[in-house]
Amino acid sequence: MKDAQTNQDQSIEEMMNGIGAAAKAASAELAFASAERKHAALIGAAEAVWSARREIIAANEQDLAYGTEKGLSPAMMDRLKLDEERIRGIVDSLRAIAEQKDPVGEVIAEWEQPTGLKIRRVRTPLGVIGVIYESRPNVTADAGALCLKAGNAVILRGGSESFHSSRAIHACLLEGLRSAGLPEAAIQLVPTRDREAVSAMLKAVDYIDVIVPRGGKGLVGLVQREARVPVFAHLEGIVHIYIDKAADPQKALDVVLNAKTRRTGICGAVECLLIHEDVVKTIGQGVLRALVDKGVEVRGDKTLAQIPGVVAATEEDWGKEYLDSIVAAKVVADVDEAIAHIRQYSSSHTEGVVTEDASVAERFFQRIDSAILMWNASTQFADGGEFGMGAEIGIATGKMHARGPVGAEQLTSFKYLVVGDGTTRA
Amino acid sequence: MKDAQTNQDQSIEEMMNGIGAAAKAASAELAFASAERKHAALIGAAEAVWSARREIIAANEQDLAYGTEKGLSPAMMDRLKLDEERIRGIVDSLRAIAEQKDPVGEVIAEWEQPTGLKIRRVRTPLGVIGVIYESRPNVTADAGALCLKAGNAVILRGGSESFHSSRAIHACLLEGLRSAGLPEAAIQLVPTRDREAVSAMLKAVDYIDVIVPRGGKGLVGLVQREARVPVFAHLEGIVHIYIDKAADPQKALDVVLNAKTRRTGICGAVECLLIHEDVVKTIGQGVLRALVDKGVEVRGDKTLAQIPGVVAATEEDWGKEYLDSIVAAKVVADVDEAIAHIRQYSSSHTEGVVTEDASVAERFFQRIDSAILMWNASTQFADGGEFGMGAEIGIATGKMHARGPVGAEQLTSFKYLVVGDGTTRA
Repeated sequence: MKDAQTNQDQSIEEMMNGIGAAAKAASAELAFASAERKHAALIGAAEAVWSARREIIAANEQDLAYGTEKGLSPAMMDRLKLDEERIRGIVDSLRAIAEQKDPVGEVIAEWEQPTGLKIRRVRTPLGVIGVIYESRPNVTADAGALCLKAGNAVILRGGSESFHSSRAIHACLLEGLRSAGLPEAAIQLVPTRDREAVSAMLKAVDYIDVIVPRGGKGLVGLVQREARVPVFAHLEGIVHIYIDKAADPQKALDVVLNAKTRRTGICGAVECLLIHEDVVKTIGQGVLRALVDKGVEVRGDKTLAQIPGVVAATEEDWGKEYLDSIVAAKVVADVDEAIAHIRQYSSSHTEGVVTEDASVAERFFQRIDSAILMWNASTQFADGGEFGMGAEIGIATGKMHARGPVGAEQLTSFKYLVVGDGTTRA
Repeated sequence: MKDAQTNQDQSIEEMMNGIGAAAKAASAELAFASAERKHAALIGAAEAVWSARREIIAANEQDLAYGTEKGLSPAMMDRLKLDEERIRGIVDSLRAIAEQKDPVGEVIAEWEQPTGLKIRRVRTPLGVIGVIYESRPNVTADAGALCLKAGNAVILRGGSESFHSSRAIHACLLEGLRSAGLPEAAIQLVPTRDREAVSAMLKAVDYIDVIVPRGGKGLVGLVQREARVPVFAHLEGIVHIYIDKAADPQKALDVVLNAKTRRTGICGAVECLLIHEDVVKTIGQGVLRALVDKGVEVRGDKTLAQIPGVVAATEEDWGKEYLDSIVAAKVVADVDEAIAHIRQYSSSHTEGVVTEDASVAERFFQRIDSAILMWNASTQFADGGEFGMGAEIGIATGKMHARGPVGAEQLTSFKYLVVGDGTTRA
């Protein structure tokens, strides 16, 4: 039994090493593939997905049957399901990525030195990206396409629930690569449900440059804990909004209602309101009552729990990500107390301030180091598309390399190109 | 015995956790410290170093005595030694860093979305930087100052040989911080020679954002292998220069002689020449003979070993970093063979091409992914100062975050500041 286990592990390891070596070789070619060729591959893939929609739906039915057998929740079954409309969405998304600006080769900076050297800093691909995701099969297309756009080879490891759907979509991506004359190893899908493959990816410092986990807290936490390879991710979006005493009442109402109720399950949804003590009975009460009227469970501190409809919060409510129709609320003495609370409890994703006082907003912007800070705007704007950065592979809260929305440009590195004329150093 | 060991490890771990927590707290304050205050701290430190030069030299004498006792090599003793001239160098370097542009708060990009949102991407400090270095005591001042300039707290772990010198210099940095009203924990020096402190730093994902090793291959290799924290470093500088058939003979001679002989011990010194077969008997022979005349040991492949003065290379000479007056040399059929050789053997630090043919240079620039590529220029220019980027903490060959010379700007991250007017998402 032990030997069989060892042999199986070895073969997964060998398989992953083979995938890694192929990805590395492909990435060397992709690094100088023209923008036109990558564009053609993505358009080809979009066409192939649309042509193969019946096969994809048939593959998806296999996954749905497996999901029913495994007793997946209705929400997970819904995430898994593909129909013609959702496949149209995948096609549109592939086309949108195809039409985005190609970041590779962009001159980021250019200058001349007194020695006569001309120096350019140009954008290059990162190399090989590993994407580990859960049930949504569209990630196969989106992540594969975005990595290719930035000239990277990608190793995709989808959830076991979407195994057949991902395989069918991946076949279309390969068709796009072939039609454009790009190496098929540019986009590889790990062909096993074995979890050993994930462990191998997390350790693969020799062939993966960065890992992007796409999924719930369980997956992201596992990846952040175990990866030896750098990771672009956020574990949680514990988003705060501070309502200052100088807030405009209407803006406070609009921003908070939108930030909580537009969609409660996204990482930019607000989870905690901090209200200046001077405006508790005016703006604060108005905002909280409007939330209660919208069916939101408001968990307030001692003072706020006295407002009709508000329930009492416990210590566990501070720093909690509900991803649901629930919000915590707390009174603070001033912007500094709000900043201190956010520093203690935030996940460094996105925070907002509502105020007409520019000096308060400035202090909030300066003293909080979350990836995204919003002034008089809904935190639900925390999204690569809304930032005008195109498709995103996720939002990162780390401080290294990529931060905030991670789009094609953030999936690149750079190199220095230096031109002299026989120039030597003194 | 075992208990004593455990207790000692625990106390080092506790000490390092205390240093880490203090650094993190200081970094939160430094993040919004004004440029003026950081400037004042650095000028104050420069003045303190000059005033304390006699104490520093006395401390250095203790280190030199310890070094003699330990039997350090003359080269290491020289690196360790401080005199008034070298202290003047430290003072000048502190002043130069003080006068550099402050990168924090710089608006990297700014745009407006159709929703009315105004988005700024602004530079922020990385947080806490750990610097692990060997015998040169001036690194204490340089690294401490550069991290502070970029708004980072720094934890310095100097070599055991320079223990007293580093302590004396560190005391002056603290004087600068105090005089400017900045927290002393902004620049901490690990107050023990115990190697456990290094291990603790390498694992300290909770309080160190990036580790910079400064030293030889042994130290850098250890850090790259063992660190859980991201690392900015290069392990080796295996620098290649390709002399194309369209090379200008004089430029080839000037560039190669400078790249090899100006200083042989720096990471930008060329270690391997690749010569186009068509110019072996003309440019190639001229360059190699000039190197031999300068006392360089040239180790050539079969063809080149026939040139008088050139010795035969072995397989081990390809991909070798000599850091000495030795160079490998090989004939290649064309630029593609040169590129293939470099891809196989380079350490992705710096490579050069000498040619008058722009298409050859373009191909070399596109298809090689080293951090720095030089065309008709000496590879010894691979240096933050020569790039006009100010003081550098080192050169990085990784693809994540910082690459090439790592100066103050490369020691920063960024965040997004978004301004609306009660703006909500549809």
